[in-house]
Amino acid sequence: MIRIYIASKGDRAGLQRLFQAELPEAEVLIDAAELGPEPCPYIVVGRPDPGTIASVPGVEVVLSLNAGVEHLLASGEVPEAMPIVRMVDDGLAEGMSEWVLAEVLAWHRNILHYHRIQPEARWAPEREKLARERIVTVLGAGALGGPAAEHLARIGFRTRVWSRSGRAVPGATAYGAGQLEEAVTGADVLVNLLPLTADTRDLIDGALLGRMARGGLFVNGARGAHVVEADLVAALDAGQLSLAALDVFRTEPLPAEDPLWRHPKVLVSPHVAAPTHPGPAVAEMAANIRRHQNGEPMRNVVDRAAGY
Amino acid sequence: MIRIYIASKGDRAGLQRLFQAELPEAEVLIDAAELGPEPCPYIVVGRPDPGTIASVPGVEVVLSLNAGVEHLLASGEVPEAMPIVRMVDDGLAEGMSEWVLAEVLAWHRNILHYHRIQPEARWAPEREKLARERIVTVLGAGALGGPAAEHLARIGFRTRVWSRSGRAVPGATAYGAGQLEEAVTGADVLVNLLPLTADTRDLIDGALLGRMARGGLFVNGARGAHVVEADLVAALDAGQLSLAALDVFRTEPLPAEDPLWRHPKVLVSPHVAAPTHPGPAVAEMAANIRRHQNGEPMRNVVDRAAGY
Repeated sequence: MIRIYIASKGDRAGLQRLFQAELPEAEVLIDAAELGPEPCPYIVVGRPDPGTIASVPGVEVVLSLNAGVEHLLASGEVPEAMPIVRMVDDGLAEGMSEWVLAEVLAWHRNILHYHRIQPEARWAPEREKLARERIVTVLGAGALGGPAAEHLARIGFRTRVWSRSGRAVPGATAYGAGQLEEAVTGADVLVNLLPLTADTRDLIDGALLGRMARGGLFVNGARGAHVVEADLVAALDAGQLSLAALDVFRTEPLPAEDPLWRHPKVLVSPHVAAPTHPGPAVAEMAANIRRHQNGEPMRNVVDRAAGY
Repeated sequence: MIRIYIASKGDRAGLQRLFQAELPEAEVLIDAAELGPEPCPYIVVGRPDPGTIASVPGVEVVLSLNAGVEHLLASGEVPEAMPIVRMVDDGLAEGMSEWVLAEVLAWHRNILHYHRIQPEARWAPEREKLARERIVTVLGAGALGGPAAEHLARIGFRTRVWSRSGRAVPGATAYGAGQLEEAVTGADVLVNLLPLTADTRDLIDGALLGRMARGGLFVNGARGAHVVEADLVAALDAGQLSLAALDVFRTEPLPAEDPLWRHPKVLVSPHVAAPTHPGPAVAEMAANIRRHQNGEPMRNVVDRAAGY
């Protein structure tokens, strides 16, 4: 008997139905009161409350509903030897690429500008550029950054991609360790899709933003803690950036009193860039549970040393 | 001696310099007063004033700066036997694809919605769909519709493309003559990139829009006269459409008193979807002039019977 405890917030009953369909032989629990003393090797989590994971008897594997797991590593909630599996499903990468393309293209083609001046009923064409006249740098060449950069390149943007490993992405120019500044120099658009680690925290600061071409766009689909927020606001206020499209923040939900909500050059979206889509997510987790049951290696197990 | 008269509005001197660089042996005129009695076989036009073409001695070829040439056919200004070459340059197709993607993705990912509610400082995620959950129908499979449909399909949209010929587009499902209604049935997004001919005028009416899925998006990058405007507004007001992104209008510039400017579900842009980019456009026209000089067939000569 496979036992799975779904400890996430949100639609637990929906996830339970999907798991039951994928793994009919499993017992899928959504209520801590039903756990009892029997071992339950699998726990499904989003951002669990402290003590949640330790409270499950015989837990062996932590299955994250999110691609970013820095909160699970930071809390010390998960013993070193216990595997954490992060969510990497096709829907996640697709959703992120679509959101990045939407933000980059809307800025590139002045969609918000024309919307803003529309009440003036004034026929005022801007000089529109082609994608091939713009440089876009994507930070991160992994499961999210790779596909986003590939899509941007296909559309015609002069695309660069930076990652520690210097991993190649079709159509893009790859930069590796020690080449971050070079990768950003002259970029019209900077897209952040990095994992959050000790090395990438506060990576995006005034010096880095200052290397971009003047009047550019910053897009953040990764984590708020990658960015030195005061530097970002200063770059916007000074005109070094014309717009920041932010989907992630140091504190989420972004508090109502946060000035980012009211900054005229900031687009706030409520962490919707790459929502986990329940169907593909449960299918991916169920496949990993089957691998674990068969003694095979699981996919997308977090590397504790790398931090993602 | 090749003589070329640039009769377009806008930056004539800029076009003159570009032509001179492409064809150093040519005499390139931008002022009617300089024409004199000598034959000038080539005239470059946008939307010429009545009588302009007839006023040029010995004119043999009309070179259009635009992809759409219905105004040149309608006016009776150009004798039947005189070739009209329409503008088909890579920049035009690229610009149109980029604009279509920007409008479709901005709607798909609720960019304007989040922007609109941002002043409320309310963290309110929508249920975001993936592109693969949306059907997009592109009307037109030619130099503009083909690349746009291909890009939409690559991003993941379930893409259909309709044209008279039923021409295939990679990644998309093709529909031909007699299949227009089928192609539009259930579509979440309808993108118009048709040429304007007697057959396509007023093609997009209430019956066609009514075949789409409820709450969809209409994108017009072709011509205002393709659309029965009263039907479009009725579909928006009834909620059959949630948004219309319009770059083209029956009268351009769109008059300040036109109610479309103030319709809450209409995005007006001032005919900027696919601007002609002078460099590639002049290179393409110069290449056709060389072909004509050498007695070779020119490219993109308008088919008078087809109307484009």
